[in-house]
Amino acid sequence: MRTDHGLPLVRLGLIGAGRIGTMHAGNIARHVPGAELAAVADVRPEAAEKLAARYGTEAQDVDGLLKDVDGVVITSIAAAHLDLIQRAAAAGKPVWCEKPASLTLEEIDQAIAATDAAGVAFQVGFNRRFAKDFAAARRTVEDGGIGTPQLMRSITRDPGPATLRAGIPPWTIFRETLIHDFDTLLWLNPGARPVEVFTKADALVAPEYKNDGLLDTAVVLITFDNGAIATAEANFSALYGYDVRGEVFGSKGMVVTGGLPSSPLVHYDANGLRQQTFRSDEEMFRDAYVQELADFAEVVRANAAPPVTGADARNALRVALAAIASYEENRPVRIEELG
Amino acid sequence: MRTDHGLPLVRLGLIGAGRIGTMHAGNIARHVPGAELAAVADVRPEAAEKLAARYGTEAQDVDGLLKDVDGVVITSIAAAHLDLIQRAAAAGKPVWCEKPASLTLEEIDQAIAATDAAGVAFQVGFNRRFAKDFAAARRTVEDGGIGTPQLMRSITRDPGPATLRAGIPPWTIFRETLIHDFDTLLWLNPGARPVEVFTKADALVAPEYKNDGLLDTAVVLITFDNGAIATAEANFSALYGYDVRGEVFGSKGMVVTGGLPSSPLVHYDANGLRQQTFRSDEEMFRDAYVQELADFAEVVRANAAPPVTGADARNALRVALAAIASYEENRPVRIEELG
Amino acid sequence: MRTDHGLPLVRLGLIGAGRIGTMHAGNIARHVPGAELAAVADVRPEAAEKLAARYGTEAQDVDGLLKDVDGVVITSIAAAHLDLIQRAAAAGKPVWCEKPASLTLEEIDQAIAATDAAGVAFQVGFNRRFAKDFAAARRTVEDGGIGTPQLMRSITRDPGPATLRAGIPPWTIFRETLIHDFDTLLWLNPGARPVEVFTKADALVAPEYKNDGLLDTAVVLITFDNGAIATAEANFSALYGYDVRGEVFGSKGMVVTGGLPSSPLVHYDANGLRQQTFRSDEEMFRDAYVQELADFAEVVRANAAPPVTGADARNALRVALAAIASYEENRPVRIEELG
Amino acid sequence: MRTDHGLPLVRLGLIGAGRIGTMHAGNIARHVPGAELAAVADVRPEAAEKLAARYGTEAQDVDGLLKDVDGVVITSIAAAHLDLIQRAAAAGKPVWCEKPASLTLEEIDQAIAATDAAGVAFQVGFNRRFAKDFAAARRTVEDGGIGTPQLMRSITRDPGPATLRAGIPPWTIFRETLIHDFDTLLWLNPGARPVEVFTKADALVAPEYKNDGLLDTAVVLITFDNGAIATAEANFSALYGYDVRGEVFGSKGMVVTGGLPSSPLVHYDANGLRQQTFRSDEEMFRDAYVQELADFAEVVRANAAPPVTGADARNALRVALAAIASYEENRPVRIEELG
Repeated sequence: MRTDHGLPLVRLGLIGAGRIGTMHAGNIARHVPGAELAAVADVRPEAAEKLAARYGTEAQDVDGLLKDVDGVVITSIAAAHLDLIQRAAAAGKPVWCEKPASLTLEEIDQAIAATDAAGVAFQVGFNRRFAKDFAAARRTVEDGGIGTPQLMRSITRDPGPATLRAGIPPWTIFRETLIHDFDTLLWLNPGARPVEVFTKADALVAPEYKNDGLLDTAVVLITFDNGAIATAEANFSALYGYDVRGEVFGSKGMVVTGGLPSSPLVHYDANGLRQQTFRSDEEMFRDAYVQELADFAEVVRANAAPPVTGADARNALRVALAAIASYEENRPVRIEELG
Repeated sequence: MRTDHGLPLVRLGLIGAGRIGTMHAGNIARHVPGAELAAVADVRPEAAEKLAARYGTEAQDVDGLLKDVDGVVITSIAAAHLDLIQRAAAAGKPVWCEKPASLTLEEIDQAIAATDAAGVAFQVGFNRRFAKDFAAARRTVEDGGIGTPQLMRSITRDPGPATLRAGIPPWTIFRETLIHDFDTLLWLNPGARPVEVFTKADALVAPEYKNDGLLDTAVVLITFDNGAIATAEANFSALYGYDVRGEVFGSKGMVVTGGLPSSPLVHYDANGLRQQTFRSDEEMFRDAYVQELADFAEVVRANAAPPVTGADARNALRVALAAIASYEENRPVRIEELG
Repeated sequence: MRTDHGLPLVRLGLIGAGRIGTMHAGNIARHVPGAELAAVADVRPEAAEKLAARYGTEAQDVDGLLKDVDGVVITSIAAAHLDLIQRAAAAGKPVWCEKPASLTLEEIDQAIAATDAAGVAFQVGFNRRFAKDFAAARRTVEDGGIGTPQLMRSITRDPGPATLRAGIPPWTIFRETLIHDFDTLLWLNPGARPVEVFTKADALVAPEYKNDGLLDTAVVLITFDNGAIATAEANFSALYGYDVRGEVFGSKGMVVTGGLPSSPLVHYDANGLRQQTFRSDEEMFRDAYVQELADFAEVVRANAAPPVTGADARNALRVALAAIASYEENRPVRIEELG
Repeated sequence: MRTDHGLPLVRLGLIGAGRIGTMHAGNIARHVPGAELAAVADVRPEAAEKLAARYGTEAQDVDGLLKDVDGVVITSIAAAHLDLIQRAAAAGKPVWCEKPASLTLEEIDQAIAATDAAGVAFQVGFNRRFAKDFAAARRTVEDGGIGTPQLMRSITRDPGPATLRAGIPPWTIFRETLIHDFDTLLWLNPGARPVEVFTKADALVAPEYKNDGLLDTAVVLITFDNGAIATAEANFSALYGYDVRGEVFGSKGMVVTGGLPSSPLVHYDANGLRQQTFRSDEEMFRDAYVQELADFAEVVRANAAPPVTGADARNALRVALAAIASYEENRPVRIEELG
């Protein structure tokens, strides 16, 4: 068997040739060590063809792809995730699935059950955990460097306004955007469990879509069983770029993650000083996006446990669903109400 | 009449010789241009004597002081504020009063009524407004530099643990600490009115005092009638020092205030880089503390309108009281419920 | 005798009502604790009258001023310094003199001799030593926090172009601007002595004045007897403001001083992030300017040794003179050549 | 022919399996899109074997390698560069050569002549040009964003002390370390030519090796024909890590490159705030190291002009040789003296 540069080659198949799938395909093809983009599938065959051609690989249908690869990278729309996860599991192939893994607890439970039953790894795409500063923050918290977390913050502001349009599903801000922040907060408070959620949200960027259920601005307050009080915050139109930051304040100190400047360059002129800011998730999390798939390649290669699990996706989803319920009822909602 | 350095001299009397009063006395005596510390009073005459001696001025009782001065600086405990404000108003003397001006709406209304009836100025000690970066943030918001505010944040973390002891009144974190943040948020969202408040709070620093009502950690979520969603956050024991920051995110940009490093000095060694952090409000807001009294001296001198009013204190207090009600009932509380 | 706010009052007379004198006058009158601006003198009586009136004090001639005050603050042009220092010394009055204390070694020696003979203090206006970050850097170096200095840097960039005009004396950049950097470098390398100097300089901002000897851009390389190699750098037209920074790299670490942002405020908009920068020495060194005179007031009050001495001025001047010689001859010049 | 992920595959052979060669081999094998590490050679065959095995490729002798590849990456010791470049040119293969391309003008002229005669590309490894912030600084300068350069700075501080040992060739600090800074300064002052150089250098880190010619601390002052005055500075033992920074000050502003923190993470505790710093060139310039070879792969693929040329290497070398002459003679040396 050919080895690619000393690492046993892992052949990955990608399903879902949209924006995020295209990015991941490029990373697999060109940046993930020891990985090969072995096949691409999409419900729109021409999209699969186009992406496959870009990286010199094959377009296939899902069944063909599943036969051909060592592991599956799912980047389809969320509604298609469960079916694809189940088929991959049935084919005995390890799965990496973009977030949100599922939009309902029922689905994520079925996805977990399917992969568990098949004995295949199931990794979820919470990419922030793989960013250098976020990973270092987690280590600092685990090592006791800030004591017990008491106040936490995680924010996501998308540069928009491209993301704002009719047709975006309701609850997107909770299930697709803040899901990142919920995972981050749970992960940066290791061992603690979320207890209660309270949400305020609105359509401030595009009020005309509010009746379609498209909220674009939200703050979610989360309490944990170790006493920590956290805020998760999102907005769909940050004119200065892509803004993701985190903060964990504890009994002995604080860690702050997320730098807004996109390079150390500082330009001084008659108006003072200026720095450029990150303009997209792909720019800010470029390395993290590669790393999460490099880790998945290693999971496939070594049949190892994934660093982000279906259980992690379920835990974040429960917070998202509680946040939605809180928004709808304008009251604090306990996580345990979710069942 | 003698002029002091070109500014007509304003003779200020200070009532309340505790920690904060001592600081203000020093500022009046040594740092506020055109002001003289003309007299000091305290319910403990020996405290007044000691502070007066330190700055070479006279200790007096309140009545004597009120006769002798051009304006009154009240730095007593909050419970004594109303009586002192009323007596100063009756004596026809402009009043500067430390925050919280009052602990109840009834009292602040009486204080406003008394000073209005007497036609004397009534300025309140929200010092943050006078800090260079906070003032510049407000100007930027007013000038449209960030568009319409959508997401806001104001935090106060005291270095403690000196502030934690039995005997601190319940609700201190809302009425004495977060009152700053409530004022800051209202002031940085000019023209908007707070609508609803939701609170989570706990005793995480000193759980043993929780039964005494001493909460030391709190997050308050506030919505405004222009759609902005704000968080105010406080904690009584930040081991790394005094941490006050603000953030206003709007439809066109963002301003961030509050720098944690206490000087530009950066020290690099085998462990990386280090900077010192502010260790107290007096260190971080040294200039702001002088400026608010310099402004008050000018209010007295020119019979001008004060830059922070009793109405400002009342508005912040309403948010604090709603926050307390929300904590007690674990539900969102509308400001208008306060009456 | 009246005390001002607990500090025995020190009556200071200021000689020289130009730009820098006006600033110091304001500081003495309004910001230096326990000091009074007792009199102002100037070779142009109307300038003295105007400045005196601004701060409600008296304009006098030099002889009258010297009789009337406890200490003298000299802010005249450099050419007048020696005469004024000698007269102050003859009158038995402690002297604070703006930098450059003298433009020749003969003059500084005479100034030192005169004040020594009279037994009066002689303090020189190297204000940077009193800035919080520079002072902390010096303490860090003294405490061994960076080991032995090996590479050093001190820069001064004036915002100009107001300072550029015909009539500025030749060598201004060395004797009036870089003199600060020379003092800073000597002071941040305690115990070491400068050995050799090499200079490159030019008129890049205003080439039309080069024939008048007005250089506006210079770099001076200085070696010390402990091996440290330092660069001092100046320019007269930094469009982004006033830029003074220092750096000391040693065997165990580094300290960096001087922050360009004038406040912690950061403004984010569609172009990225922006911060304002310092626009003048008065803005960057406001506190340092007050502190150096507060220290002088204490020198007068307590008959104490000044924190910056005539010997310090002489040491910096020797480097400046060597730098000029190096420029003229385009060769390295040893300090000992200066005699 | 197989394409690798859509890019026509470029087969690169690497000659020189030392520290830097090992890093480049890993980049070619795993991180450079569309490149394959086709062969490895080294004067020590066992070193080539080991490195080849690590990346699943072949160890060959130089002649075999030259027959087998599309382009050659030379990472041997500098003394071997010329011979290898000539052999690659004779074989008609494009060459990428680590800096310093040559240690003498004769050699670099021969290398340029050989590659010119053969019509093969000759790219040199000045990696800093490929760092995001340095590249942006160059664009800003080219676009007139800082006006005409007047003052420049480029520094290199290696973390050592591993680099300090007997046996390091004399002049290493000039020809192997500062050569980077010389190239950076020339490149950031486009269109200008260096005129004169003055050097101070010493053995401060390891005085015991001074007699062996191993200088470890140096400052070189360079003047340009457009008036700019630049300093290049190096030291072999920065305990806080790897420190490479640049600064270009011009008539309209300034750009500053090089950030010391290795991630945005800030950790606050009882001692203030801390950030980690870069610990090696491989950490700071990881992306730049990949990019320079990605660009070379494209040069090979498209038969394009290289972004860094032999002429660039020659220009930097002339400054290095002038700097050495200046050190030896303790006088300013004009570049034209070098011939």
